[in-house]
Amino acid sequence: MADVNLNVGGTIFQTTAQTLTKFPDTKLGSLKKNFSMDNSPTTFFFDRNPDVFNSILDLYRTGELHFPSYFCGATIRNELKFWQIDKTYVSECCLESLYRYDDEMGILSEIKSLQERKVLDIPEDECREGCPRDFLWRLLQYPETSRKASVFSVVYLFMVLLSTSILFISTDPDLRQPIGSTENATSSNDKTLMYTHTSVPTSIWIIDISCGIFFTLEFFIRVMVTPQRWRHFFCCPLNVVDVIVITAFWMFNCMVHVGPVFLHRKTFSFLVMILASARLLQLCRFYRFMCRFSSFDVINLAARASVGKFGILIALFTLSNLFFGYLIYYVEFDQRDSFNNAFVGFWWAVVTMTTVGYGDIVPTFFLGRVVAMLCALTGILILAMPIAIVTSNFTLYYAKLKQYTMHRKESKQKENCKKKEKKKKKNLCKTVSPISVLSVKPIR
Amino acid sequence: MADVNLNVGGTIFQTTAQTLTKFPDTKLGSLKKNFSMDNSPTTFFFDRNPDVFNSILDLYRTGELHFPSYFCGATIRNELKFWQIDKTYVSECCLESLYRYDDEMGILSEIKSLQERKVLDIPEDECREGCPRDFLWRLLQYPETSRKASVFSVVYLFMVLLSTSILFISTDPDLRQPIGSTENATSSNDKTLMYTHTSVPTSIWIIDISCGIFFTLEFFIRVMVTPQRWRHFFCCPLNVVDVIVITAFWMFNCMVHVGPVFLHRKTFSFLVMILASARLLQLCRFYRFMCRFSSFDVINLAARASVGKFGILIALFTLSNLFFGYLIYYVEFDQRDSFNNAFVGFWWAVVTMTTVGYGDIVPTFFLGRVVAMLCALTGILILAMPIAIVTSNFTLYYAKLKQYTMHRKESKQKENCKKKEKKKKKNLCKTVSPISVLSVKPIR
Amino acid sequence: MADVNLNVGGTIFQTTAQTLTKFPDTKLGSLKKNFSMDNSPTTFFFDRNPDVFNSILDLYRTGELHFPSYFCGATIRNELKFWQIDKTYVSECCLESLYRYDDEMGILSEIKSLQERKVLDIPEDECREGCPRDFLWRLLQYPETSRKASVFSVVYLFMVLLSTSILFISTDPDLRQPIGSTENATSSNDKTLMYTHTSVPTSIWIIDISCGIFFTLEFFIRVMVTPQRWRHFFCCPLNVVDVIVITAFWMFNCMVHVGPVFLHRKTFSFLVMILASARLLQLCRFYRFMCRFSSFDVINLAARASVGKFGILIALFTLSNLFFGYLIYYVEFDQRDSFNNAFVGFWWAVVTMTTVGYGDIVPTFFLGRVVAMLCALTGILILAMPIAIVTSNFTLYYAKLKQYTMHRKESKQKENCKKKEKKKKKNLCKTVSPISVLSVKPIR
Amino acid sequence: MADVNLNVGGTIFQTTAQTLTKFPDTKLGSLKKNFSMDNSPTTFFFDRNPDVFNSILDLYRTGELHFPSYFCGATIRNELKFWQIDKTYVSECCLESLYRYDDEMGILSEIKSLQERKVLDIPEDECREGCPRDFLWRLLQYPETSRKASVFSVVYLFMVLLSTSILFISTDPDLRQPIGSTENATSSNDKTLMYTHTSVPTSIWIIDISCGIFFTLEFFIRVMVTPQRWRHFFCCPLNVVDVIVITAFWMFNCMVHVGPVFLHRKTFSFLVMILASARLLQLCRFYRFMCRFSSFDVINLAARASVGKFGILIALFTLSNLFFGYLIYYVEFDQRDSFNNAFVGFWWAVVTMTTVGYGDIVPTFFLGRVVAMLCALTGILILAMPIAIVTSNFTLYYAKLKQYTMHRKESKQKENCKKKEKKKKKNLCKTVSPISVLSVKPIR
Repeated sequence: MADVNLNVGGTIFQTTAQTLTKFPDTKLGSLKKNFSMDNSPTTFFFDRNPDVFNSILDLYRTGELHFPSYFCGATIRNELKFWQIDKTYVSECCLESLYRYDDEMGILSEIKSLQERKVLDIPEDECREGCPRDFLWRLLQYPETSRKASVFSVVYLFMVLLSTSILFISTDPDLRQPIGSTENATSSNDKTLMYTHTSVPTSIWIIDISCGIFFTLEFFIRVMVTPQRWRHFFCCPLNVVDVIVITAFWMFNCMVHVGPVFLHRKTFSFLVMILASARLLQLCRFYRFMCRFSSFDVINLAARASVGKFGILIALFTLSNLFFGYLIYYVEFDQRDSFNNAFVGFWWAVVTMTTVGYGDIVPTFFLGRVVAMLCALTGILILAMPIAIVTSNFTLYYAKLKQYTMHRKESKQKENCKKKEKKKKKNLCKTVSPISVLSVKPIR
Repeated sequence: MADVNLNVGGTIFQTTAQTLTKFPDTKLGSLKKNFSMDNSPTTFFFDRNPDVFNSILDLYRTGELHFPSYFCGATIRNELKFWQIDKTYVSECCLESLYRYDDEMGILSEIKSLQERKVLDIPEDECREGCPRDFLWRLLQYPETSRKASVFSVVYLFMVLLSTSILFISTDPDLRQPIGSTENATSSNDKTLMYTHTSVPTSIWIIDISCGIFFTLEFFIRVMVTPQRWRHFFCCPLNVVDVIVITAFWMFNCMVHVGPVFLHRKTFSFLVMILASARLLQLCRFYRFMCRFSSFDVINLAARASVGKFGILIALFTLSNLFFGYLIYYVEFDQRDSFNNAFVGFWWAVVTMTTVGYGDIVPTFFLGRVVAMLCALTGILILAMPIAIVTSNFTLYYAKLKQYTMHRKESKQKENCKKKEKKKKKNLCKTVSPISVLSVKPIR
Repeated sequence: MADVNLNVGGTIFQTTAQTLTKFPDTKLGSLKKNFSMDNSPTTFFFDRNPDVFNSILDLYRTGELHFPSYFCGATIRNELKFWQIDKTYVSECCLESLYRYDDEMGILSEIKSLQERKVLDIPEDECREGCPRDFLWRLLQYPETSRKASVFSVVYLFMVLLSTSILFISTDPDLRQPIGSTENATSSNDKTLMYTHTSVPTSIWIIDISCGIFFTLEFFIRVMVTPQRWRHFFCCPLNVVDVIVITAFWMFNCMVHVGPVFLHRKTFSFLVMILASARLLQLCRFYRFMCRFSSFDVINLAARASVGKFGILIALFTLSNLFFGYLIYYVEFDQRDSFNNAFVGFWWAVVTMTTVGYGDIVPTFFLGRVVAMLCALTGILILAMPIAIVTSNFTLYYAKLKQYTMHRKESKQKENCKKKEKKKKKNLCKTVSPISVLSVKPIR
Repeated sequence: MADVNLNVGGTIFQTTAQTLTKFPDTKLGSLKKNFSMDNSPTTFFFDRNPDVFNSILDLYRTGELHFPSYFCGATIRNELKFWQIDKTYVSECCLESLYRYDDEMGILSEIKSLQERKVLDIPEDECREGCPRDFLWRLLQYPETSRKASVFSVVYLFMVLLSTSILFISTDPDLRQPIGSTENATSSNDKTLMYTHTSVPTSIWIIDISCGIFFTLEFFIRVMVTPQRWRHFFCCPLNVVDVIVITAFWMFNCMVHVGPVFLHRKTFSFLVMILASARLLQLCRFYRFMCRFSSFDVINLAARASVGKFGILIALFTLSNLFFGYLIYYVEFDQRDSFNNAFVGFWWAVVTMTTVGYGDIVPTFFLGRVVAMLCALTGILILAMPIAIVTSNFTLYYAKLKQYTMHRKESKQKENCKKKEKKKKKNLCKTVSPISVLSVKPIR
């Protein structure tokens, strides 16, 4: 016989007192002392969602707490808190919506923090219009703030493209011109000889130096006018890269002109390698332009979220490479001209597992080919896992960023509209309400 | 104590006046003035869905607006509008169903616009039966309209296949016959020599010219009989391609016969390259046939939806290529016979990142191989993202197109049935209704 | 004012008469004539699901028919039928669950038809125990029916493995022995010479012939004892393959011994190719063994479901191959030693688009490498689509087959239990029911 | 006319007696005998979830049992059991949530058993503090238990890295030093000669032997102090591997020094191959370190769950390889210098189907290239299936492990909090409850 009536937000739930006392620590369990003494059912009123309460009451009826999968994690948490039920009562099969909510909130907070970092970092009240320092800072760093700034940003992009092109063009032996009388160097394939005996044509050299001066100036101006402390300024990775690239640029240019005379051939070749590689970091200058596209934010966030999970997969991939690389060395033990040492085996395993398959080293013995087959299949399966991580993160962040962007846009529109329509609305409400809202006499 | 009764579509919700006044701007908040003065609860009736109202009321109870994930975005919008609640109140974790609805509507409208474009573009009332102009237009463009038109379309497809085959066959040096007495040309590998000293056999040449005449005629007839303005006609990409292909065809044929005599060898070779590549655009003629299959529509739509998102990924892919290409050039600095310039490095990076791995250029130094390993892994992960985009778009559009097609088919069937069964139904209804619909006395 | 009460399965829905008359063709719309004349609300009782009715009533309230996504398509159909609402009223955004149901039913019926085909095809009542014909048929075809049959099936599998091994071993030139005195043949690479001047060792030849005799006998016995009509028997693809393989086996053996003497070298080589390829069809004999694993059923079904969608993708892949193959031929026009004709270009395009990248033909010119880059990227994206189809079909059929298998197993267990527990249950019911089912006095 | 009232947890469901008697075996069907004799409706009270009951009642109304997709499988099972309805009544289209529950429970139990295995296996009460045996066992096996143990584990990891490095370094012919006076051996490519005539430098040899002694000692100590029975100890695969690696290590070292003198060249080379491969198993020692990361658990579980489904796919892959390998042999029958036997064809098919594409063997004939195209496409599609399995298992286990870990962490936190707050809570409850729980007079 039902002897407890629970009126939850208007819906009547009936159950027995015996059922409710199963979990005495919870709010419903503690109702006991309020029960009426006679047999007539007592009614309690709670101003809560009756839909969720159904699942809550099931805990008392069946001893298990299951939630329909459609509830948002926040709703479940709110209700559990209200009914003083521990989260640990939730059945293990229904944890998904509870914790998916945490994930989604985490993603949204990441997106928000990324969006906020793009906003101008000069406090609005400090930003004096006439001050040339602030003007320059905004000109160099925030292309959205003024017309001049966006023109500068286009010029900057052009210079980046130009200097990157020259970086590539200057490696072409056909374009380079011999220094002095040594004409025979160009024909050979030795790159150190090429660098010591030839130089880029004067026209290209002038453009290169101009680019270098432009970036050096731009960087020094930025250092001078930054409103940040220098300690903070030089903590930003992009600025550190700028320092390295500019230093490398000038050292490289000195090197190429002075080096061959003073330095030993080996040292020269080594220094050219290091400095040229350092100059390559100028590709990071593209990063600032890509950041303006929200698609790049998605890639950025997806990459960051994935990196944490990659560690163990890279370890596994490397272990498999070691395994197959060492195995193929001994399996192809009797074969000449292949796999001279286990490092070659490792290289072969990498090439095979990524399915690149250059074909520079190939097993020729029957057993070696069986190892190769296993190696390729293992590689395909191991690499399927990081691909799955990247893919799912990318899809997830893409969907969330899209929703967030649309929501923020609508919020802004509404805010603007509100101010205008505030007066109208109040008048409208009075006339609209009588049509659809009908007050009836209370049923009892 | 519950002091407000809300009768929403028959379901009673009870709450306190205090709760409702939390958001005074909304419809429920503005009920305040209608409350009865005495303590007896007032009841308001709203002719709305009680199921959604539960979530709406939760906004007043908990201050957060969460929706179960099963509601269609349109339902939520309708209810939010009715209850005068701003979309910005919706919790960030429940935006998904709200905005997924926009996406789905966008997809459906794309599908619809694609379907409509396939329908005959002559207004039905203007389409006179006897008019030879309209007859020809429909014959050439709309194979579904008549038996003759579908026969013509098969002939057209055959001619397209034929001319494409000849395009390929005519490049085979073994088939070509020497012009005049120069017999030694065929054996060499120089393609310019081949084009100047040999020609295709007469039989193939006749078929090729016939195809050319057929397509030229077909195009001119289409131009003459088109009901569209010429300005619109020549805006359609397929017609522009037709102009290019026909021009290239005749110029190519003149070239091959006259060129070797009048033109310099280099110019001739360059012109042959350009014109032959232009002729290749005739593959676009297959497009019209593929458009008839709904699977191709899916590919088409998925490709269009994906292209927008590809921009940044292609930029990222190119940047990575530049990075690894330049890096490998300097890392393999001391190695002879590999990576002569940074462009070769770029080419190697492309081949490695797509896992094609031709093996024409391979790093041989230890560090170079480490760079190669990183390059291959980076490539696999970067390319996983466009694959994810294409895959998910393809799956999405496929599902939607299928649903839409089935729904439209059923709609048409029903429309036809309706006209027939209209009379019967009315009679049936009168007799059927008493069985299952039972009028009872009002409960109170 | 609410003036119509709808009691749907116990839940009261209230609405206005005006709302219901919006769609007069439907069951609710036709209630009009039953309304009571006075102002007191009329109540109608329907013995239906109140949960779904909420959505139905929304059609009258808002003019749009949306369904929560959790309803099974069958439920929606049942309710729409009962309420006499046309399926075409369903909003386009809520079609998914409606049509997903059709898909799932389609998949289930495919699974069922596949399962049924595996069951013994002799009608149970015709299957006489003593009859040697039926005994042999079941021995040869249904390994599950008896112990002897399963032993035979293992023997058969062993013979299939043996004959396949010999197929491969007999191509090894090192194993083959010269016929007569021509000792110099083995060293050359010409396979026709190898077949005319050498033969397999006698031991292998005996095993091969034994296998051939075994399969020939097995097939003839099967033909003799089959309970099917011969017309049906020879329509089954597996039996046709058996005929081809057995014919090819004996002809091949004759050929190899008699051929070199009587036939011209070219004809002999051609016939060997054809017959050897026909013998290869014996791999189909593995099919029968793989069919016993339910995982193979999944692959089977997924492949069948995918094939229909592949047509257009193969066309697209081929078109892209033609495009890039022809383009690379002309782009690399001035390069010697590469891309001798457009067919070579086509082959290169295939190798590049599938990312196999043998490296036998590689573009060397700058533009050619750009084409190669585009070709590889296009290939990766086009091939992502069939992979998506196969992947999603595989996952779908796998999940469904698993569910179906588990459900059928449980159904069988229950059937067996039912017979035993029938008596007990009735007794139990009487004693159990009073505990949890409590009859109360009617509320009114 | 509704003549049965069912009060399920407070919600009233009305239906007809006729409806309920459709399934007399079930609880509702057996209510019949309790119906009141007069026409007034009888009311039955059940203390169950009214939401699920709606679907249950639909079985009686429509004859089909469909469940909304949001119900957890456990909820459905509980209700079906209570209402005495057979699981076989559930419609085939709604089986998903029913059986997905089983899967999820299976996954959770796998995760749990994996977590438990990591916990210390000495019973807590047997673990005497002072006992040196237990101390050593925990030192060697459970790095979490003490500071000394974690220091030992770092030393162990260092030794594993060291001995693996030496394994690779010792294969480099440039590092090895000639034994005795045979100086000409190093230059040749023959590895057996290298092993017989050269040895690793003394410094590396000393480090290698030290590592060997360390691992041998560590193993013997572990054997001595293990609290497990030896029978159990040597059943653990990791311990068996340790035995093999240690044995192989010492035998290999004897071999290399003594072998060349006593053994035949072939035997020596064979033994070196076997023993060196056995030493490779020391990579398993990394396994223990990777097990500490929960990401590795995911890979581990996903791999185990996938292996079962791989069998048939590997069979299919091998069959396709056999098919294409044999086919290409005969298709390229007339081509010299390619595909000398069908095994080479098999190797080519593997390389092509995995899209590795070394390019060591390439078809050159037109038909052979068509076979290659089909082979590559078949390979891509077949391999898409295991990738799909691995991907989905990995994603699934990852999500579940994350949920489980978060849930367990919260459970532990709550447990700790509970003990502290027990007293406070009781006092709080008394004061909190009157605010939101309001007892009202019963409605009637």
